[in-house]
Amino acid sequence: MSKLKEYEPIFHPRSMAVIGVSGSATTKFGSIFLASLKEFGFKGEIYPVHPKADKILELKAYANVKEIPVDVDFASISVPADLVPSVLKDCVEKGVKAVEIFTAGFSETGEEKKAAIEQEISAIAKESGIKVIGPNCFGVYCPASGLTLLPGYDFPKESGPVAFIGQSGGYATNFCSEGNGLGIRFSKVISYGNACDLNEVDFLEYFAEDPETRIITTYLEGVKDGRRFFSTLKNVTQEKPVIIWKVGFSEAGSRAVSSHTSSLAGEESIWDAVFNQSGAVRVNSLEELIDTTIAFLHLPKDIGKGISVVGGGGGIGAAGADVFEKAGFTLPAFKPETQSKLRKIYQPAGTGIGNPLDTGAPIPPSRETLEAIAEDPGIDILVLYQFIHFISSGGSIEALEDTIAMQAGIKDTYGKPVISVLRPTPADMEMLATEQVWRKAKDRYLEADIPVYPTLERSAKALFNLRKYQSYLDETIVKE
Amino acid sequence: MSKLKEYEPIFHPRSMAVIGVSGSATTKFGSIFLASLKEFGFKGEIYPVHPKADKILELKAYANVKEIPVDVDFASISVPADLVPSVLKDCVEKGVKAVEIFTAGFSETGEEKKAAIEQEISAIAKESGIKVIGPNCFGVYCPASGLTLLPGYDFPKESGPVAFIGQSGGYATNFCSEGNGLGIRFSKVISYGNACDLNEVDFLEYFAEDPETRIITTYLEGVKDGRRFFSTLKNVTQEKPVIIWKVGFSEAGSRAVSSHTSSLAGEESIWDAVFNQSGAVRVNSLEELIDTTIAFLHLPKDIGKGISVVGGGGGIGAAGADVFEKAGFTLPAFKPETQSKLRKIYQPAGTGIGNPLDTGAPIPPSRETLEAIAEDPGIDILVLYQFIHFISSGGSIEALEDTIAMQAGIKDTYGKPVISVLRPTPADMEMLATEQVWRKAKDRYLEADIPVYPTLERSAKALFNLRKYQSYLDETIVKE
Repeated sequence: MSKLKEYEPIFHPRSMAVIGVSGSATTKFGSIFLASLKEFGFKGEIYPVHPKADKILELKAYANVKEIPVDVDFASISVPADLVPSVLKDCVEKGVKAVEIFTAGFSETGEEKKAAIEQEISAIAKESGIKVIGPNCFGVYCPASGLTLLPGYDFPKESGPVAFIGQSGGYATNFCSEGNGLGIRFSKVISYGNACDLNEVDFLEYFAEDPETRIITTYLEGVKDGRRFFSTLKNVTQEKPVIIWKVGFSEAGSRAVSSHTSSLAGEESIWDAVFNQSGAVRVNSLEELIDTTIAFLHLPKDIGKGISVVGGGGGIGAAGADVFEKAGFTLPAFKPETQSKLRKIYQPAGTGIGNPLDTGAPIPPSRETLEAIAEDPGIDILVLYQFIHFISSGGSIEALEDTIAMQAGIKDTYGKPVISVLRPTPADMEMLATEQVWRKAKDRYLEADIPVYPTLERSAKALFNLRKYQSYLDETIVKE
Repeated sequence: MSKLKEYEPIFHPRSMAVIGVSGSATTKFGSIFLASLKEFGFKGEIYPVHPKADKILELKAYANVKEIPVDVDFASISVPADLVPSVLKDCVEKGVKAVEIFTAGFSETGEEKKAAIEQEISAIAKESGIKVIGPNCFGVYCPASGLTLLPGYDFPKESGPVAFIGQSGGYATNFCSEGNGLGIRFSKVISYGNACDLNEVDFLEYFAEDPETRIITTYLEGVKDGRRFFSTLKNVTQEKPVIIWKVGFSEAGSRAVSSHTSSLAGEESIWDAVFNQSGAVRVNSLEELIDTTIAFLHLPKDIGKGISVVGGGGGIGAAGADVFEKAGFTLPAFKPETQSKLRKIYQPAGTGIGNPLDTGAPIPPSRETLEAIAEDPGIDILVLYQFIHFISSGGSIEALEDTIAMQAGIKDTYGKPVISVLRPTPADMEMLATEQVWRKAKDRYLEADIPVYPTLERSAKALFNLRKYQSYLDETIVKE
């Protein structure tokens, strides 16, 4: 059976029960979630379940999920851990298709008694066929159906091509909220905690099929079934990039993932092999996850390796050359025609015309400069290193609109990617107005499919990851 | 002769000639510099030199430096390259002690004729004893005497314990302007370009003696005399940390440093040995230079290796543990007493009490929590991972003042460093008000000698660098 159809009740439920919502307190998971769901704008019906209350947040409440008079597709469960199995059984009897269990305090505690309750949940799921996400998770965010994570009431309502799968609720939330300002929009996001039933492989299979998803991203503490994970991953990467941030390799890290989601972290050497042989893209921090996602979102997959770094200052180019060559790119010397075109533009400057190109002053390079470089057959990618306070004529976005449009025009005319390394605004309080311009400029660049990075290093790492994935695909096609 | 005395006219000139200032245009180096010097507030006398003008910017101008009726300690030269030797000879005749030559277009062009002019400058310097900084540089910034870099009119007027030496004018400027918002204040900053006379070793020797300087930082494209550099460096690091950002190791990078400041980049393997054997602290980007400087500024030099990462979220700890263990730190399990204290605080949570500590929610850890951890004999450093929008009660600095004061109190009471990993504000336009709070909080932390970093990775790298320097000192003391 197609996972698309099978997981329909999870991502597009027509109705949802919120079980374990407090009648008064709003600091409990269930209550926060109910409020979030309403505020975010869930498109189906919502049924709070509470032993005594008649109404919660203007919604009619029921004492038990079984008393809800209509079909229930999906339910969230936030009752105390020892009550979860009986609530889950009620859901099965009611015909609920899937649940997300926010409650924590199971196998991750390391206590046998609590782990036994989790095993009971698994057994109920296996026997009945009800799908379980969690326990000890933040659940599912799917903008298309108005479903949100715990709490997630302020997440973007727009959908996008990025899927995220992660044990951690915190990092699911952080990725959504930090990604938002950087133009990352999601098809679906899942925090799945202890994975006592559905796990990373199930979601990988789903996203491989999901037409809404173009890029799959993950935060992994461990996997439940290494063999199945590896073989699935190897298949999925042939169709869609899978970006994996794997943690827990250190001694304390492995202890932490065990007490967080009872995951087995696994040996780093085994994971090295998984990355090398599966085509998954490895990242090592939230920043790298975000940066790499931006590269996959805005750049063609088959970028070349010839880079030109352009900036106002000789040091910038020298540092940039090191960084990009270490990331496997080259900075080819310009062809004689390019050099003579540039020499006409930079006639007054005494210094040589080379790649990296020092434009002498921290103002945006002229159209003629960028055209000359883009016309050079050795250059595949243009990296522009700029300072917002210098390129915005002291801090107005209007002055910048034309510059950004011109740079985007070069990209489109020559079909060569342009990357904007836009230094972060200095952290002084006096620079807040400039920070506003930085944020606007960043939006304009992203709208024009020009990735924006704060540093040379981060841009080089993101482009390296993009290119490595394409190289893997090229090699596996040749082999087969 | 002591370098302190010898370089007095460079850093504390009583009078300064600005040679090569345009009568009208303000976009030329000389004119920009003259305006900067006035605006920044140079404490000595300023004498513009111009062939025809009587007055420039309200200052009496002279046709030749030799016509200035009083002694001139220091001069800046911005005349066209081929006129520099004769202007320099005039300075010698006038008895000027030192000059900074902003003019570019010498050996870095790769043209023999232009390199010959530079050799002529060197020869004049050697013969006459006049000290030359440059050519092709941005000069000297010394807040104590009101001397500033080109342009540098808005640099901090306060002095501080950090010295910077670098070929690049751009990176000297960027380090000053980005460091400013992060509380980095300078004793002296030098951009010395092609180093045809004074070079990195001269300045290293100066800063070793300079009582105002506690931390020496550098950006290097190459060194003029490897042996002398190495032996000087090895001596200086016994007294003061020397943080070096060396570029130009890649093919294009080495080409770039040659055409930038005609430097010979050198082999990376040789530099690896220099770093290992000299005790210099190696950094690889402007960010790492800034981050490491902040660590040296605010932390004791002999920090321990036992770290506790504290944050609201299990994923944060898992990622943090990996990052710090890779950087050579350990996250020791808490002692039983610590665990039992923490268990009382986190009683409701089902999860275990471990290091890294997941406080369950992204609010600041309580005083009791931090006290319990700081009392644990295995813990030397507390790393707090926090999100500004969660710890400031939705965005006010007032709510945060007490929190930061409490955290600073823990540091002082227990004598254990506290590090603040304060996530950058998400880049949405809507978060600008929060960004303002971030900036204020960052200032408060730095005032309390709590280093602030945007990510776990950057904090770990900075602490690693600090600790590596101390390990080097410990080893060399044992050996000797």
